[in-house]
Amino acid sequence: MRGAVLYAPGDVRVEEREDPKLIEPTDAILRLSATCVCGSDLWPYRGIEPVQGPSPMGHEYAGIVQEVGSQVTTIRPGQFVVGSFFASDNTCELCRAGYQTSCLHRQPVGAEGAQAELLRVPLADGTLVATPDLPSDDLVPSLLAASDVLGTGWFGAVAAEAGPHKTVAVVGDGAVGLLAVLAASQLGAERIIAMSRHAPRQRLAFEYGATDVVTERGDAGVAKVKELTGGLGGHSVVEAVGTQESMLQAIGSTRPGGHVGFVGVAHGVELPGEELFYSAVHLHGGPAPVRRFLPELIELIWNRQIDPGRVFDLSLPLEEAAEGYRAMDERRAIKTLLRP
Amino acid sequence: MRGAVLYAPGDVRVEEREDPKLIEPTDAILRLSATCVCGSDLWPYRGIEPVQGPSPMGHEYAGIVQEVGSQVTTIRPGQFVVGSFFASDNTCELCRAGYQTSCLHRQPVGAEGAQAELLRVPLADGTLVATPDLPSDDLVPSLLAASDVLGTGWFGAVAAEAGPHKTVAVVGDGAVGLLAVLAASQLGAERIIAMSRHAPRQRLAFEYGATDVVTERGDAGVAKVKELTGGLGGHSVVEAVGTQESMLQAIGSTRPGGHVGFVGVAHGVELPGEELFYSAVHLHGGPAPVRRFLPELIELIWNRQIDPGRVFDLSLPLEEAAEGYRAMDERRAIKTLLRP
Repeated sequence: MRGAVLYAPGDVRVEEREDPKLIEPTDAILRLSATCVCGSDLWPYRGIEPVQGPSPMGHEYAGIVQEVGSQVTTIRPGQFVVGSFFASDNTCELCRAGYQTSCLHRQPVGAEGAQAELLRVPLADGTLVATPDLPSDDLVPSLLAASDVLGTGWFGAVAAEAGPHKTVAVVGDGAVGLLAVLAASQLGAERIIAMSRHAPRQRLAFEYGATDVVTERGDAGVAKVKELTGGLGGHSVVEAVGTQESMLQAIGSTRPGGHVGFVGVAHGVELPGEELFYSAVHLHGGPAPVRRFLPELIELIWNRQIDPGRVFDLSLPLEEAAEGYRAMDERRAIKTLLRP
Repeated sequence: MRGAVLYAPGDVRVEEREDPKLIEPTDAILRLSATCVCGSDLWPYRGIEPVQGPSPMGHEYAGIVQEVGSQVTTIRPGQFVVGSFFASDNTCELCRAGYQTSCLHRQPVGAEGAQAELLRVPLADGTLVATPDLPSDDLVPSLLAASDVLGTGWFGAVAAEAGPHKTVAVVGDGAVGLLAVLAASQLGAERIIAMSRHAPRQRLAFEYGATDVVTERGDAGVAKVKELTGGLGGHSVVEAVGTQESMLQAIGSTRPGGHVGFVGVAHGVELPGEELFYSAVHLHGGPAPVRRFLPELIELIWNRQIDPGRVFDLSLPLEEAAEGYRAMDERRAIKTLLRP
């Protein structure tokens, strides 16, 4: 099969790779309908995370089940399925509490690279969620979004306790931030402040339900959010970047007793304890337990109540993955969909 | 009047000070029945926080209202009252949300020093809560505890979402930690693990409702809590120390999706973002909004359902404040009550 491999920072190649095979009797093999480039893929692409030799890339996927292991009982060949970047049994105590990314038997799905034609998914019964029927083509980008960015933005909004009568602010205008805006809107937030300085992203934020845009960053961004909220800060703030500045911006933009949901993968962040202590905010985040939300998100997409696939403003054949990375790195694209 | 003043690390003196007077029409003057030394008073006493010239000490208090300003309407001279270390109007949006320590009009009560015979309390109507009648002497220590340590331990347990079916761990065996054990028990926790290596504190922890004691600290303490919880960690962990080690011990002892309530005043803490991210815990804490809990706590004490005053294992006349500090510094006493 064909698959994308990162050789060194900036060096993504699509090459012939071995077809994945069933290893465990709980595995499934998918033929992917669509996959994509994640904001987190840019960390090694930019050399901020080290690249340990040639690395198959990608961990977001949606496609048709081709083959299942002998112990798979609920997932069948021919179904269209979506899964998360961590395989989970969905039965252990942590899964039942809604923290499938911390499943006692979790396995990363990305290890073999989802930017490819075929993908092995472990713990298929616990991990994959099938759509009611085969989707029409125009639904595929949204279903793919559910695999990570939508589920992550949604978790950010849930962790920030976005809901009715709440003012929500979102730090970060990448696909996750934009979909946190959509999530906050779906969860009934009264006011949604998107922090963005890029016109196309601002537009999408407004279409997803933002009521205000703040272009300032850092302390100036905090001051602006406070100005918009009677000096108090938001009730709920989603952090969707993962840097020191964005975390402090999120904490600073939250009123005492408010909630920060942080879903940007932390890179080099050190939270000053005293500042956190006196901020009196709630802090919750981490790798999003997308699996918790998948059934609900698939239903919303299937019924065309939400259109998260619009974050893919660039769609390329898998063979052109390198250009997909470049476009995101240079912020020419919010998110690149790849068609195997 | 007589009052305790810290001149330099280790140098506490009780001396003649000017009687406090009404300044604002919303003030009250109390004649204190009891006051005490706080764990946080030990930070400057030990020289870990700088001492900026002679500093009146103390911020915990219970006593009889002597005089009120012209705009005070609910508090009357002759009442026995308890208040928190921050004065709050109890009417602003943040107070109504239960975060009185972040009140838009908050004022520190400790600035003039509560380790004294008399104390001026600003915003008397919002800050002070009167007991149903004058208390008998034996209730005074417990009512004094409600002013800070009980309210703080209680907030830690609430922030950690202690409750039925939950396993709670408490890091720190000072008065706040011990009262967090009591709070967790009152809140219905199924199992309460006290982390303590001091026999008298372990005994009190058991009497307050602890079911297990862990003597190990740091990584060994984390490993022990995990061993006691099927490898998962506690659902709810209260941090009641405020150091880097204790914060990491608390986070490490919490299962993914669990809750850390941190109430130890952070000193030199830097939380590593990646560790926090992958821990997937909830984090909430800060200066306890004791006022939120005061009516309920006073009722529990008045009805003799809880006995938080037992954390005062040393009771001295105010004149002997210096010995009270020394005893706590040397861990000969859990907490020192001072009788003006």
